[in-house]
Amino acid sequence: MKNIILVGSGNVATHLGIALQNCNYKIIQVYSRSIEKAKKLAQKLNTNFTNDLTQLKTADLIIVSVNDDAISTVLSKLKNTAIAHTSGSIGMDVFEPNFSDFGVLYPLQTFNKEIELVISEIPFCIEGNSKAFEKELIEIAKKLSSNVITMNSEQRKKLHIAAVFACNFSNHMYSIADDLLAEKDVDFKILLPLIKQTIAKLNTNKPKKVQTGPAIRKDMHVIEEHINLIQQEDIKELYQKISNSIIKTHE
Amino acid sequence: MKNIILVGSGNVATHLGIALQNCNYKIIQVYSRSIEKAKKLAQKLNTNFTNDLTQLKTADLIIVSVNDDAISTVLSKLKNTAIAHTSGSIGMDVFEPNFSDFGVLYPLQTFNKEIELVISEIPFCIEGNSKAFEKELIEIAKKLSSNVITMNSEQRKKLHIAAVFACNFSNHMYSIADDLLAEKDVDFKILLPLIKQTIAKLNTNKPKKVQTGPAIRKDMHVIEEHINLIQQEDIKELYQKISNSIIKTHE
Repeated sequence: MKNIILVGSGNVATHLGIALQNCNYKIIQVYSRSIEKAKKLAQKLNTNFTNDLTQLKTADLIIVSVNDDAISTVLSKLKNTAIAHTSGSIGMDVFEPNFSDFGVLYPLQTFNKEIELVISEIPFCIEGNSKAFEKELIEIAKKLSSNVITMNSEQRKKLHIAAVFACNFSNHMYSIADDLLAEKDVDFKILLPLIKQTIAKLNTNKPKKVQTGPAIRKDMHVIEEHINLIQQEDIKELYQKISNSIIKTHE
Repeated sequence: MKNIILVGSGNVATHLGIALQNCNYKIIQVYSRSIEKAKKLAQKLNTNFTNDLTQLKTADLIIVSVNDDAISTVLSKLKNTAIAHTSGSIGMDVFEPNFSDFGVLYPLQTFNKEIELVISEIPFCIEGNSKAFEKELIEIAKKLSSNVITMNSEQRKKLHIAAVFACNFSNHMYSIADDLLAEKDVDFKILLPLIKQTIAKLNTNKPKKVQTGPAIRKDMHVIEEHINLIQQEDIKELYQKISNSIIKTHE
């Protein structure tokens, strides 16, 4: 599996393409619906590009990194080939019945063009339709990262939801904190040591074990005062609901 | 201000007492309602102890680190003395009218007996009833930490609410993620690189700017699928409410 085609030109395709070439895989072609984007990524990887799925070359593997909604449309236009997608939420069944070697190579990370990534530390979740093909995907992933896990589609879907809570929703908590501090001209950066300490605890503890704050202490006096001091109705409601959830979890 | 009395024997009092002695302050006495706890901390600090507030010695400063609910009761039993409390949620007015030099020395951190802390990195939020007394408290805080900020009671209260979102509530998001993964036998540790990457972005970006996930993409298809896959009703509701809040924030 040395010659790979990338279908997609977004953040995941870009980071994967670069990482694969660094590991001596050959990206022989890049596809994007937008010819400009295909060209841009192809130039980075010094390879060919197309915006026509019927013009794909023959490769050892096609990696499909397009938006979840576009995956089945893309697949319907491809001939049988060894293939994998990189999505957390799409099951492996999306490949049936048109492909014989298929699987998933899901890098668990928030890819962001502005932020540099250490790809070797990213967990790769692998699933293949046969043991043999799964083994081939694992081999590729192990070249890219020291953190490779096999996982079925059900596990991967739950992992994706868990990542929404742990990453997207916790980031929104930081965003709300930032807004609250801005009301009183306090810089969000003051919270960074506290945030880092909260994360540091998770290296050796279950999050439930290290929960702190007014809700777990059932300090209704502080909870009430906080809700009174919050101005936005929807943020008041979030404070109340999350506090209730903490209290319920620790009953 | 060399001779200090600690009123309280919990996590904050313990960490502060040790740090103050390391900076050559002298803890001349420890008070706790529980004589055993007073004795335990006094032994750590090699000093005197009491469980009787009328028996406090004369000191340059009394630091009150008791539960928020107990502060006014404790204060009502003390004679006029230079004094500070360590609470984020209690205003400086709690000292009026019985004290002439009073203030707040609030370390912004989750103190936890099991976890070691680097006190020099903890932000200390300082407020004094006069410029002169505030300066004395700042001097003490600067010995303990390189991160000292003056802050009025209104700012400190908002900061405390912000810290609940940024620390307590984000930790609950991790806890929910852990529960979701446990349903499918996936280890929570797989999320740690993603969580760390989410935090790393905050060193150079506002949290609002680096928000990712289905809600900010308004990917209703994924949101709906996630809600369907969550089993607990209250967690479904949290997923929906937080997603709505993200969508609203980014309108």
